[in-house]
Amino acid sequence: MPARTESFPDRLAAAVRRRGPLCVGLDPRAASLPAALLAAAASVPEAFEAFSLKVLDLVEPFAGVVKPQAAFFEQYGAAGMAAMGRVLHAARARGFVTVLDAKRGDIASTAAAYADAAFSPAVWHADALTVNPYLGADAVEPFVTAAAAADGGLFVLVRTSNPGGGLFQNLVSDGRPLYRAVGDAVAAWNAPTLGACGLGAVGAVVGATNPRELAELRAALPDVWFLVPGYGAQGGTAADARAAFRPDGLGAIVNSSRGVTFPFHPADPAWEAKIVAAARQSQAELTAG
Amino acid sequence: MPARTESFPDRLAAAVRRRGPLCVGLDPRAASLPAALLAAAASVPEAFEAFSLKVLDLVEPFAGVVKPQAAFFEQYGAAGMAAMGRVLHAARARGFVTVLDAKRGDIASTAAAYADAAFSPAVWHADALTVNPYLGADAVEPFVTAAAAADGGLFVLVRTSNPGGGLFQNLVSDGRPLYRAVGDAVAAWNAPTLGACGLGAVGAVVGATNPRELAELRAALPDVWFLVPGYGAQGGTAADARAAFRPDGLGAIVNSSRGVTFPFHPADPAWEAKIVAAARQSQAELTAG
Repeated sequence: MPARTESFPDRLAAAVRRRGPLCVGLDPRAASLPAALLAAAASVPEAFEAFSLKVLDLVEPFAGVVKPQAAFFEQYGAAGMAAMGRVLHAARARGFVTVLDAKRGDIASTAAAYADAAFSPAVWHADALTVNPYLGADAVEPFVTAAAAADGGLFVLVRTSNPGGGLFQNLVSDGRPLYRAVGDAVAAWNAPTLGACGLGAVGAVVGATNPRELAELRAALPDVWFLVPGYGAQGGTAADARAAFRPDGLGAIVNSSRGVTFPFHPADPAWEAKIVAAARQSQAELTAG
Repeated sequence: MPARTESFPDRLAAAVRRRGPLCVGLDPRAASLPAALLAAAASVPEAFEAFSLKVLDLVEPFAGVVKPQAAFFEQYGAAGMAAMGRVLHAARARGFVTVLDAKRGDIASTAAAYADAAFSPAVWHADALTVNPYLGADAVEPFVTAAAAADGGLFVLVRTSNPGGGLFQNLVSDGRPLYRAVGDAVAAWNAPTLGACGLGAVGAVVGATNPRELAELRAALPDVWFLVPGYGAQGGTAADARAAFRPDGLGAIVNSSRGVTFPFHPADPAWEAKIVAAARQSQAELTAG
């Protein structure tokens, strides 16, 4: 497992070199959990935790990065958030690079409080956090500062994978779409943070569902790590995601949530084998030339 | 207190008619708390809860709306979030209209999970939630749907109060800045939700620190409730905030956090009286003709 003394971009590079670019999204939903696991748990948050820890076991040979989705844990209040924290700590302890997908964004000391929660060993202790840029540079910069202090990383939303993601992100101003203006800001935040791998600590979220824009952004931001959602259940293919990589094979992690973690009916007793098969297949698809 | 059978916009109108437009932001910070209160608590989250509940007592004559800031509670992990939940439930039980300032934003079922957390009686049970629009219409719409089902409200970030808020929000496309494009989307979501007061359930966050843009948006969005940050500690004046109101005196709630809740040194034994005085003065400033 990557040593924690490495910088965030180098920890991520080591994980991708070892296991490939698959990032397994932990998006637990009560209705999708294995029925027996849910029945055996004292509460839904406890079931989320047990399921997520089991997923870590199952996908470890195939993925070096996991991404808990805060919304599904917050849906169960403080108990859900406590379960999320235990999953994040367990994943980190097992050597996964962890991305807390919380899409936080606020200004000044409020942004700093969110960043402190994300990176503090006493709270979530994530390796990286997803951040929303709508509030501007002085809203993102407290996250950049906190990430640097914690040797953590960020993934700033640039061009998202949802069908309507272009409504504002594609508005053209001064000849370039908003997502390019955000991308250029990300490049500036990222530039002083390059690790030995040649990539930096301030990454971008760029969906696999828009392969042309993905290729455009890869060319424009050569030293920015991309977190690529939209592969798998959202309709993006491994071929679509290929545009996210640099010639050296680094530069992107590609997320699959439901596709890897819920490839079974809740009543299926063979659910563990199906997760293993889905993770193996995703790893193979994403690392095939 | 407004009956819960009223729609969100009418509950908010009743609160503003009764107490004026002051919204008290609950942004607890350990270093700012009354020292004796902090010392008496078993933990920082417990102190946040005790302080917030005391603030509710003190400001009740002067404000009908309170806005807990999720970041400061999340900074203390699940215990902090549990305290936030108890504050939200207590405020609602006392008849305050509650705005959970969490600036959530995500797509599809993930957005629905955040919205469920915000409005569910079993979780935060807030009257309203702040939402970030960067991901587009299909990302905001699950919040709109959930708010309608819960008879709750939203405040979508349109033009924020921070000095750098214009970096992306002011980019001009097709002759209008991004914040106007977002504002027009808010107007469309809001239109089907008008209450008896003539305002709707999908509001906008518009900072007091940009009075010209505030006036422009008030004219463009006559039936949209505005949540106006930036008054007080952030430098906006009551005169600046006046542009947010409609001729009928409705249309906006004006937030003050530190200015009302922390107008004292932590060692000051007279902190309660200072909160009362600050809330009284803010109410008077904001309701003066």
